[in-house]
Amino acid sequence: MSNLFVKTLREDPSDAEIISHKLLIRAGYIRRCAPGIYAWLPLGLMVLNKVEAIVRREMELAGAQEVHFPALLPADLYQASGRWEDYGPNMFRLKDRKEVDMVLAPTHEEAFTTLVRDMFASYKDLPLMIYQIQTKYRDEARPRAGLLRGREFIMKDAYSFDLDQAGLDRSYEAQRQAYQRIFARLGLETVIVSAMSGAMGGSRSEEFLHPTPVGEDTYVRSPGGYAANIEAVVTLRPSPRPVDGLPPAVVQATPDATTIATLVAAANAPGAPVRQASGEAVPGVQGVPWTAADTLKNVVVAVTHPDSRRELAVIGVPGDRDVDMTRLAAAMFPAEVDPATEEDFARHPELVRGYIGPQVLGANAPDPDSAVSYFLDPRVVAGTSWITGANRTGYHVFGLVAGRDFLAAGDPGQPVADVAEVLPGDPAPDGSGPLEPARGIEMGHIFQLGRKYADAFGLRVAGQDGQLVTVTMGSYGVGVTRAVAAVAEENADQRGLIWPVNLAPAEVHVIAAGKDEAIFEAAGRLAQDLEQASLSVLYDDRPKVSAGVKFADAELLGMPFILVVGRGLACGVVELKERRSGQVTELSVDDAAAQIRRTVTAASEAIAARIANLSTNNLPPPTQ
Amino acid sequence: MSNLFVKTLREDPSDAEIISHKLLIRAGYIRRCAPGIYAWLPLGLMVLNKVEAIVRREMELAGAQEVHFPALLPADLYQASGRWEDYGPNMFRLKDRKEVDMVLAPTHEEAFTTLVRDMFASYKDLPLMIYQIQTKYRDEARPRAGLLRGREFIMKDAYSFDLDQAGLDRSYEAQRQAYQRIFARLGLETVIVSAMSGAMGGSRSEEFLHPTPVGEDTYVRSPGGYAANIEAVVTLRPSPRPVDGLPPAVVQATPDATTIATLVAAANAPGAPVRQASGEAVPGVQGVPWTAADTLKNVVVAVTHPDSRRELAVIGVPGDRDVDMTRLAAAMFPAEVDPATEEDFARHPELVRGYIGPQVLGANAPDPDSAVSYFLDPRVVAGTSWITGANRTGYHVFGLVAGRDFLAAGDPGQPVADVAEVLPGDPAPDGSGPLEPARGIEMGHIFQLGRKYADAFGLRVAGQDGQLVTVTMGSYGVGVTRAVAAVAEENADQRGLIWPVNLAPAEVHVIAAGKDEAIFEAAGRLAQDLEQASLSVLYDDRPKVSAGVKFADAELLGMPFILVVGRGLACGVVELKERRSGQVTELSVDDAAAQIRRTVTAASEAIAARIANLSTNNLPPPTQ
Repeated sequence: MSNLFVKTLREDPSDAEIISHKLLIRAGYIRRCAPGIYAWLPLGLMVLNKVEAIVRREMELAGAQEVHFPALLPADLYQASGRWEDYGPNMFRLKDRKEVDMVLAPTHEEAFTTLVRDMFASYKDLPLMIYQIQTKYRDEARPRAGLLRGREFIMKDAYSFDLDQAGLDRSYEAQRQAYQRIFARLGLETVIVSAMSGAMGGSRSEEFLHPTPVGEDTYVRSPGGYAANIEAVVTLRPSPRPVDGLPPAVVQATPDATTIATLVAAANAPGAPVRQASGEAVPGVQGVPWTAADTLKNVVVAVTHPDSRRELAVIGVPGDRDVDMTRLAAAMFPAEVDPATEEDFARHPELVRGYIGPQVLGANAPDPDSAVSYFLDPRVVAGTSWITGANRTGYHVFGLVAGRDFLAAGDPGQPVADVAEVLPGDPAPDGSGPLEPARGIEMGHIFQLGRKYADAFGLRVAGQDGQLVTVTMGSYGVGVTRAVAAVAEENADQRGLIWPVNLAPAEVHVIAAGKDEAIFEAAGRLAQDLEQASLSVLYDDRPKVSAGVKFADAELLGMPFILVVGRGLACGVVELKERRSGQVTELSVDDAAAQIRRTVTAASEAIAARIANLSTNNLPPPTQ
Repeated sequence: MSNLFVKTLREDPSDAEIISHKLLIRAGYIRRCAPGIYAWLPLGLMVLNKVEAIVRREMELAGAQEVHFPALLPADLYQASGRWEDYGPNMFRLKDRKEVDMVLAPTHEEAFTTLVRDMFASYKDLPLMIYQIQTKYRDEARPRAGLLRGREFIMKDAYSFDLDQAGLDRSYEAQRQAYQRIFARLGLETVIVSAMSGAMGGSRSEEFLHPTPVGEDTYVRSPGGYAANIEAVVTLRPSPRPVDGLPPAVVQATPDATTIATLVAAANAPGAPVRQASGEAVPGVQGVPWTAADTLKNVVVAVTHPDSRRELAVIGVPGDRDVDMTRLAAAMFPAEVDPATEEDFARHPELVRGYIGPQVLGANAPDPDSAVSYFLDPRVVAGTSWITGANRTGYHVFGLVAGRDFLAAGDPGQPVADVAEVLPGDPAPDGSGPLEPARGIEMGHIFQLGRKYADAFGLRVAGQDGQLVTVTMGSYGVGVTRAVAAVAEENADQRGLIWPVNLAPAEVHVIAAGKDEAIFEAAGRLAQDLEQASLSVLYDDRPKVSAGVKFADAELLGMPFILVVGRGLACGVVELKERRSGQVTELSVDDAAAQIRRTVTAASEAIAARIANLSTNNLPPPTQ
């Protein structure tokens, strides 16, 4: 400790909100260089190296070979795949001295695809799985939470190349199982959820989410085992109902009803129109009040396409739900979505704020070609009847029927957007019960890319029959620096970090607690003995630092075992404290090294057993 | 080999000029992604990892602690140090989504300095030596020679922080010795030469050059042990001589003498002026002909300053030497130097091409403030007499005397530029004999930075007396990817690579040479036996590949030992070929693994002995 390049801080950094971020900075594991960009100090680098070693080992076991690609790549690769446009401002771009466009790669599908195309010619060369552990760049709009969402970060990215879908399924499964083992070895619970592929493209993708309240990803799970990223939740479209016999729509003055709440209140006020529907409890008729779910809310947003074209769009959703901007962003990808501005409304006088109805939108409008695009929630099927805006200030229309008075979700010409928020209790699409929301950190993401990149770059090999076959690909990412943060987040208390024994910079933190020469001598000797017993040791040999400061630093730095050599030495006794439980054991100084060796070995074996258990249990098959 | 991600090529890549570049590509160790930007394939990465491990080990022994800094850094760091301007187009620059200027770091002095400043407060924290092995960026104008001069490359960069010069000297020496050990372990002869510090700044620097004709750096050495980078060679200024009694200068028509050669011919023609100088053999008087060394050549160049200001400058050098553009570039740094253009001459009618003389230049000109700057070679001391231009087409002046007719090198107001080419036989400045030129690859560069960066960033600590002391720094770089290329360049023949046993991807390359099942069985078993004997093995198990192709691939890939299991197997015999010598030994199949183990161990021990030898010999003290 007297030489180690570390300084502990007593104060939390001002920009840190979550405990891992605070503690990794305070304990001197990392330092911020710029927003989302961190330097690794010696202790941090030791943990990072251990995480990398686990990932490397599991990749090797999965049959993947390690390579290393440049971070700086020519833009033409990304132009050919379309990601040059799709990534928008999230990609760091630059020009070299010859004005050639370059990028700092967010991932390497393009470069790997062209490499394999240039090297391989025959089906005999396949399958191939290659990976790298490499620095990636993404110009996040809101880098946050320390290592959790950085702009420069380390990823393991693997790529598989197969002749056919069956091969891709095998490669995908091998990576999927490797991921389960990696996260088990890191001690991180993960949930595998269906996900959207986004900029990556491809047909199928799953995320490995680590459930934690500090996670940025929202997902849902059902008691029956359904789990999906919030963007990937599919709302079941109800069956259409007959429109015959439904009463005609009635326009009604609703002064001041500019919100869903005031509109519902106005609808339930005496004298409001009666709603009729055969066979149902009818709000306004039989004492059943109107609810927000009976209203159709039309939300105006601005959509910016990758070619910079900007246009308005309106999303119609039941009034008891908001549009979920995350789901909307995923659905509109690669376009970007923002709230509409005053100027937008000024340019579209047909959009009467607070009173917008379907009749002026999309294919319902008198002149559909010049109308604002209209997207409908899948619940707005034919035969459903709504209170919605009458496109006139102070007026709503009651009993406007989808499929009769305006195009319903599912009608030709009426695009559907499944972007309303998912509410607790909503049914899982596979019938496995009500959904409950949860938050998680995206630890890994695996993609069946299919032929997107192989087609873009002409990656074909001669098949067994001599015909050229387009190769089918997968890509598989693990956030390595993010994993360090997730482990720290999960293994900490208010006093500091608590590393699992297989990830700690050192297994034992030896403290010389006192001023006597004899204490330093004994502590130094014990540190040596422990190292000779193949344990890794951090020895706090600082001469003029109080025992209190040393204890506090040890708890902050988070080695799993703390050996205190102090006053008890006179009686031949030292104390071993388990950092996690706080449990203290007295050990005879003569026997201490051997006993600690046994304790550390037992802790390591418990982790190994966790993995062995995974393997013998036969990992569950992929859900989908 | 049947699964390894490698494809050998029979043809040299079209852009490769040197053997390491050709072979590393052909053997599938690296692949080019863009000019100066390479991907590492599995075999290449294995070698790179071994080189990194050597560097890491020696840094640890030198007392340096490993950290890892970002490649992407905010520009303000480099603006504060001045390198934002100094690096010019060699630095990759970009803006993030918030239009913040960023750079891809060429080296990390700024970031390390600010980190230490933010962490350290007291002399007790020093000395400190930290390092990283990290990806660096430099936008080279002419990336070439594969990994030798790349735009994305891996460097080990270490930084030392000391209280005083004595501490810096110790840190510098520790790194210097570590470098000698690193290059010894890599098997690379290196010469330590005095160097210029260039953009890095600081007072003292030395380069570790690996002598090779493919090197980009020119240096000189003398029999007495002087060695210097060509930029750092100092020309001794001769003593001034008396000007009294020298005859007056004579202007003479010299039609067509627009080159030094034609001028010398004209000077030696009948009727040319007589040269007089007391006590010397006088050309033109006593039958001694004029030579090019008697002429003063004035070379016009354009100098562009970091602030983009462009101006002309004239360099006066004895006519038997050219201006060395490398030396000139180093002397003018951070300004950039280019040849003058037609437009430049058009703007300066006083510069009469082919007939430029000192009288219109610099402080010699009638109006010095508006005159073109003039720099003189150190040899042009007072009392030397020259044939030079008369600033009039078709005329030269004979006997123009420095210190009388124009300012001499060393006169106040006359800047000296020691930028003429160094010729074989020139005297070493330390009197150690004639210089001879050589070429080398810059493998490492160590700098005594002094307080340049600490001053720029306010890195001060409280000294023992409580007064603030500015920290003094060193920085120390090794080109890690370049080292792989240098090792390959040094260890190759026309058939392929020949890795030293401590750097090879595998120690033994086992070939199943034949079609019989028995051969594959025996080869596979031997490969296993060798691995069990702790050797690393590459096994060529490809079933339908001819023995000839396998031999050629083995020689190309360059493992140090090749074990051929072929026809001899029937008689219980296999063949071990040493790749470097080509020597073949027959081994009994039963005893082969044990014998190969002994052979490989002996080869490894020879390398270890090389290092031990270095250490026991006490490394030589730094030259200067």
